[in-house]
This record gives sequence, structure tokens and C-alpha cells, in this order.
Amino acid sequence: MTKIIDGKKVSKEIKENLKKVIELFSSKPKLAIIQVGDDSASEIYVNMKRRETTKIGIDFMLIKYDSDINEKIIEETIKSLNKDKSINGILIQLPLPSNMDAKRILNLIDPIKDVDGLTNYNIVKLINKEDAIIPCTPFGIIKLLEYYNIDVRDKKVVIIGRSNLVGRPLCNMLLNMDATVTVCHSKTKNLKDYTKRADVLFTATGKKHLITRDMIQKDAVLIDVGINRENGKLSGDVDFDNVYKKCSMITPVPGGVGPMTIAMLLYNLVSCYKKQNNKE
Amino acid sequence: MTKIIDGKKVSKEIKENLKKVIELFSSKPKLAIIQVGDDSASEIYVNMKRRETTKIGIDFMLIKYDSDINEKIIEETIKSLNKDKSINGILIQLPLPSNMDAKRILNLIDPIKDVDGLTNYNIVKLINKEDAIIPCTPFGIIKLLEYYNIDVRDKKVVIIGRSNLVGRPLCNMLLNMDATVTVCHSKTKNLKDYTKRADVLFTATGKKHLITRDMIQKDAVLIDVGINRENGKLSGDVDFDNVYKKCSMITPVPGGVGPMTIAMLLYNLVSCYKKQNNKE
Repeated sequence: MTKIIDGKKVSKEIKENLKKVIELFSSKPKLAIIQVGDDSASEIYVNMKRRETTKIGIDFMLIKYDSDINEKIIEETIKSLNKDKSINGILIQLPLPSNMDAKRILNLIDPIKDVDGLTNYNIVKLINKEDAIIPCTPFGIIKLLEYYNIDVRDKKVVIIGRSNLVGRPLCNMLLNMDATVTVCHSKTKNLKDYTKRADVLFTATGKKHLITRDMIQKDAVLIDVGINRENGKLSGDVDFDNVYKKCSMITPVPGGVGPMTIAMLLYNLVSCYKKQNNKE
Repeated sequence: MTKIIDGKKVSKEIKENLKKVIELFSSKPKLAIIQVGDDSASEIYVNMKRRETTKIGIDFMLIKYDSDINEKIIEETIKSLNKDKSINGILIQLPLPSNMDAKRILNLIDPIKDVDGLTNYNIVKLINKEDAIIPCTPFGIIKLLEYYNIDVRDKKVVIIGRSNLVGRPLCNMLLNMDATVTVCHSKTKNLKDYTKRADVLFTATGKKHLITRDMIQKDAVLIDVGINRENGKLSGDVDFDNVYKKCSMITPVPGGVGPMTIAMLLYNLVSCYKKQNNKE
């Protein structure tokens, strides 16, 4: 029987634990989000973050700018949020408008408030296997593996996607866990050659139904990081209905990696709060 | 016919070009090396660096400490070298004694003088595909690929070794070049399964003759980054004599990647000099 990896359940447990931890704090942790423009997916994500933070006792503040805002103003905002002791985490909702230098802007965030783990400081910490704030999506994936006792040691692991947000940090983390890791991407020829051999397959492309039944090994574990929105309906990179019986375990979309990403954002925020208040 | 990838020849060309470039400079570039203790391999490498820098018109300065030196003194030395305008590059000869915090010490180097590309600053630049100083060994490997027109696009590339010095930066660079990359390591089971399928195989383990004839695909390209010293004789990870006829191209050890590493050190030093003197 195929086991459905229930990210909703795991994330719920994490959030319940966080809620209890927060109740013991002397003040409420607070997350500030800077959103620029009105990308429709961003709108959905920001609302979700507002809802989820509030639910577990985290204060939420949204600073929203029109897309023609001067970068200088964003810069000043980040600087003042860095200084503001009531703010424990700062998140720049990506994507920023394409004319902006997202990397430069992200790196203005004080690393101790960098809940997304996207500053250079935290990227290097992760590579050096030091105590880093880990980007929420790969962090959530690793938590799922732990929860379901999916041991990647000595395993053939394949990642589809080489982004700095998911593919590459995931590759680093899985190598640290002694997996043998192959990274495929849009320029890979004969993708099936690789996916067919994967004990654990991670896919993060955003191409609907890229992974079909013939492309996977029997009893593989499938972690679907893809998000495709069509007529308000979500689907992943995996042709779930046709594939799932062939796997040993699989994440659905929605309800797999997605809820974990938001749970790990909350987790990171609580870690930031603790560090800033020396509660560790 | 198998083609021997001649790192000696390529590095010679690079060094000759650098020599011409340096002759046009108004002052001599200068490299400072800090060596701690008397590791015998380090001794050899430092002498080689002294010889090679001098040969092309680079000034060389060695600061050598006993292994029981106080880290504070190294720290002060780096700080004064950072300030010293006559010094264009600073290199900490690795390994440092195990009781020292190598990462912390490396990161004291001003990134603009970091000829080895090992500061966090340059590591992140490389990941972000920005103008980084690239670590000499992976940089030398990429130069060899370019020189011999070895196109890795869409290719099955396998790297054995997951170190921060070679395997991981190489993985990043090859992904940027559109290769599909698998990283194997000491915990990989059935290594042959992977090596057998590699169009281009990079091995950086330091295990003599790890790669045997049966482990490679016919007409593969083999890049041997291993260095093993036995009775004063060098050999690589590849059982060269038995393997080479089966490949299309192969690097010998010595005379393959080794000479490229030192050439790229010189290249990096000249780049640092140019940056410091706004000659770019």
C-alpha cells in the first residue's frame, strides 16, 4: 500500500508545538513582511502567512508597496525593521519586480531576523554545516523525511531543479545526510534515465504532470515540490493519480510540501525570537 | 586514440600570458603565504608556489609559524597584510593545525585579497553566479574543459568527492554549465553503478587506483583530481595504465589538474592585483 506523506498533519503538529512554546514567551514574536506590487500568487501566500502566524500567536505586520516604489525606500524600511526590537523576523515576499536587485535587497536583512534563510550569511552557514537559518522549503522537506523515517543514507536521490531556493540547498543538505545526489534540470536530456533509477525523487519544476508513471522506479519515494495553479486548482509536478500506486510513499499537492514550507517559516521565526532573546 | 589532457602545457600557456600581463604593470604583484606547522605536503606546495610566482614576476613572501602559535598572532598578521597595499594576495596554506578554527581564520582575509577564493564572501559570489574569485582547483578544471572543448551541456557528469574545496563548488559550476551532475562520496554504495554511466567523470578522493577499467564507460572523459604520494611518487585516483585506452580523454597525475591549480592561483593573484589597481 502506498503511503501518502501528509504534510498537513505534520505541519499541524509542528504548529501546535510552536503555539505552546510561544505561550511561554514573555512577549509575542512578530513577523514583518514586505510585499512589492500585486503578483497574484504573492497575494495568496501573504494572506496565508498572515492567517497562519496569527493562529499560533505571532504578530503580523504587512508593509505593501506599489511596484514603482523607489528601492531606497525599501532599503530604509529594512534598516528600520532591523533596528526595531519588537520585530523578530523580516521577510521579503518574492518575486520582487524584475527591475529591482532582489539579492541586494535581501542581504540588507539582519541575518538574525532572516526567517527565510536567504541572506548570504545564512547560505554560507548552511554550506559550512553551521547553525544556519534554513530556507523554509528545503527545511520542510527534510522535516518530512525525518517524520516518515525516510533514510536517504547510501540512497540514490534525484532532484529535478537547480534553483538557489530549493534544488541547490536541498542537494547540499542531502549530501550532508550521506545520500548520493543527482541534480537534473530543464537542460537534462532523457530525464527518465535518471528518474527511473531514483530511490527518492524530489521534483521542483512547476511543470504540471512532468513525472509520469513510466518515469519512476517501483516503490520509489516521491517528494513533489511543484506548484501549478490552473483555474484556482493546485497540482504538482507529478501525475499523482496515475503514479501514486507505484510508489511506496508520495506527497500530494496540495497537502504535501506546501504546508511544511509555511510551518518552517513559523519555526524559523520562533528560532529567531529565541536567539534574539537568548532563550536557547 | 585516447587524448591525454596536458595540464602542464595548458598551465604553461596561462603562465606565459600572465607573465606578459605582469610586465606591463607599474609594480610587481605580491603574494603572502601564511604557513603554520610543518606538514610535509604543505612544505612541497609552498615551495612550488614560491618557485612559480617568482618565475613569472610575482613577489613572494612566506610567513611561517610553529604549530603552537597563538591564533591571535595569525589574526593580527592577516589584518596587517589586509592593510598593506604592497600585498595583493593572501593565502593560508591548508591544513592548519586541527586545534585552530580554519574557517574563522580564512574569513579574516579581505575578500579582495582572497586568492584561494575560500572566504564566505567569494563562496556566495560563486553560488550567485557573480564575479567571484574561484577556488583554484575547480577553476583549473573548468579551464581544462574549456581548452579541450569538452562540452558538458546535457552530459552525464559524475563527481566523486563532496568537499567544500573541490566537489561542491565543482558541482555548482557544472550545473551552471548545464551539465546533469551526480555527486558520489565515501558513503556511496555501488560506486561503479554511477561511474559506469558518466560521460565525464571527476574524481577527487585521494584513494589510489579507486577507479579501475571496469568502472568506466567506453570513451568517457576522466578528470583525476586525486593526489596520492607514495615513496615520493605521485599517483591519482585512477588506475591510469589500465584505464587510459578505454577513455576518450584523461588527465594524468602528475601533469593534469595539479599544474592547473597553481596556474589558477597565479591567475587569481593577477586578477586581485588588477582589481586593487582598477585595471579592469
